[in-house]
Amino acid sequence: MSGPKVVALGGGHGLSASLAALRRLTDDLTAIVTVADDGGSSGRLRKDLGVLPPGDLRMALAALCGDDEWGVTWSRVIQHRFRREGELNGHAVGNLLLVGLWELMDDPIAALDWMGRLLGAHGRVLPMSAVPLDIEADVAGHDPAHPERVSTVRGQAQVAVTPGDVRGIRLLPADPPAVPEAVAAVRDADWVVVGPGSWFTSVLPHLLVPELAAALVETKARRLLALNLAPQPGETAGFSPQQHLEVLAAHAPGLTFDIVLGDRDRVEDVPGLERATAALGGHVHLAPVSAVDGSPRHDPERLASAYGRIFVDRERIAPWR
Amino acid sequence: MSGPKVVALGGGHGLSASLAALRRLTDDLTAIVTVADDGGSSGRLRKDLGVLPPGDLRMALAALCGDDEWGVTWSRVIQHRFRREGELNGHAVGNLLLVGLWELMDDPIAALDWMGRLLGAHGRVLPMSAVPLDIEADVAGHDPAHPERVSTVRGQAQVAVTPGDVRGIRLLPADPPAVPEAVAAVRDADWVVVGPGSWFTSVLPHLLVPELAAALVETKARRLLALNLAPQPGETAGFSPQQHLEVLAAHAPGLTFDIVLGDRDRVEDVPGLERATAALGGHVHLAPVSAVDGSPRHDPERLASAYGRIFVDRERIAPWR
Repeated sequence: MSGPKVVALGGGHGLSASLAALRRLTDDLTAIVTVADDGGSSGRLRKDLGVLPPGDLRMALAALCGDDEWGVTWSRVIQHRFRREGELNGHAVGNLLLVGLWELMDDPIAALDWMGRLLGAHGRVLPMSAVPLDIEADVAGHDPAHPERVSTVRGQAQVAVTPGDVRGIRLLPADPPAVPEAVAAVRDADWVVVGPGSWFTSVLPHLLVPELAAALVETKARRLLALNLAPQPGETAGFSPQQHLEVLAAHAPGLTFDIVLGDRDRVEDVPGLERATAALGGHVHLAPVSAVDGSPRHDPERLASAYGRIFVDRERIAPWR
Repeated sequence: MSGPKVVALGGGHGLSASLAALRRLTDDLTAIVTVADDGGSSGRLRKDLGVLPPGDLRMALAALCGDDEWGVTWSRVIQHRFRREGELNGHAVGNLLLVGLWELMDDPIAALDWMGRLLGAHGRVLPMSAVPLDIEADVAGHDPAHPERVSTVRGQAQVAVTPGDVRGIRLLPADPPAVPEAVAAVRDADWVVVGPGSWFTSVLPHLLVPELAAALVETKARRLLALNLAPQPGETAGFSPQQHLEVLAAHAPGLTFDIVLGDRDRVEDVPGLERATAALGGHVHLAPVSAVDGSPRHDPERLASAYGRIFVDRERIAPWR
């Protein structure tokens, strides 16, 4: 197997679903992962040890594990979370292993590559920046007593659960350095896949790392934007698919997409989505990509089918090898 | 390579030195490890999670790692200890990984075998009992104000540092269940190696697990006792080599040894040691086994030479395959 060079950007469960699909389609897969988490196990480790928040990176590695016994077991091990009272409570095993590797190797990229070798991961996992970041959001109605007041909410964990309307985000520090390997992967890719995922806290942050944003605009790769299946309570409550596209465009001037992928059974206003997609330079592709049990999460096999169809259709026009 | 079936019993740094030597001599190597530690990282994990103390098992696994890049790196990773303020302070990375595997797999033996596969360990690591144990010691002069009073000291960490004279130990619970795989390994071995290591807290506990003690007495394997290089401040302060043999005999009626291995430059009263060894049914073998820098620790290469010489000499009399 070989397949196209694919780079997937995001964080959390959305990126994991995308990676679990993409590893079925290509051997040349790179995940670029947000590093702004400040909650839970990642927040505690980041605070105590001064390292990148490991959680989203760990989840991406788990999603790249194979379906054989080795991959399934190690994926379960690194995802396992301690739940008994005590100092380990809430930590995922893989987070602890990763921060141990970071301390020892003093090179976050080399350590992630080592962990990937351990797991037999079907792809490479890179952080979007080599320094831990924070998200700051402008939120209307964060204080429910003043629904029209726009206030500044700091921290990914806080932004993700705000009862208000998120208007936009910034990174702290602003203009953070990108990871060179991530920038190179985007520039060298055949396909770049953005999303799905928590829109303001996992997807848009990538577009605010200047070198990464420039690479996304300038790459010769085709660009695919994978929509979420439903608005997310908290950060995108009440958002239509086209509103997702509009806030993305507002955070990434000049960035176009060839394809916007939505779920066939969940996009209600197709003409509206087509108009918003045309404004980004692309076409809408609808396919059944959600879990067959009806829950609002992507099914890796269905998502793989949809990605595969998109990749193959495009290859007929201009093969990548 | 194949080599004899070797089982090494002990704990801590002494067992690690023995394993690092033995893995150079045979592919068929089993470590049986004490599980009575109640101090440090192991003590905290044992208390919080109700699991076996992982530290001695982790050290044994690290000692079995190979000399290639994979083995060297993973050995360093699992041995790495967090040293920054916070809830992870003092924990070794491998301890956290091991307790995560134990929680997930709910089978300590299967989890140790998984971790061995990860590391590419050159041998198998088994606990001497599947339940965490405690050590209780009779100590003369534990309270320095009453040097002749014999008091009961509980806990491996306390016994190891007592200022008094340890007279004997017991396990709590008494008569703990052995691990069947450990008993079978002893019965099926060509060579059983006991020690070196903290005498009362790492070596003698094995002799107090009834099924393991019976297997050690009844096995057709040859038995080798590796002496420590020096008395240990705390538990064996002032002990001569022959006193080590005498307290061992007092804890293991009926157990004989074919060979007692001592360091050529550190045994002062050779005739005395020969008499004590003869009482155990065996012969003394003296060889240079300590570190070339003069520090009181075993050098793995020198220890391997000594073990190899002993194994080969005996093979000439009755080959094991």
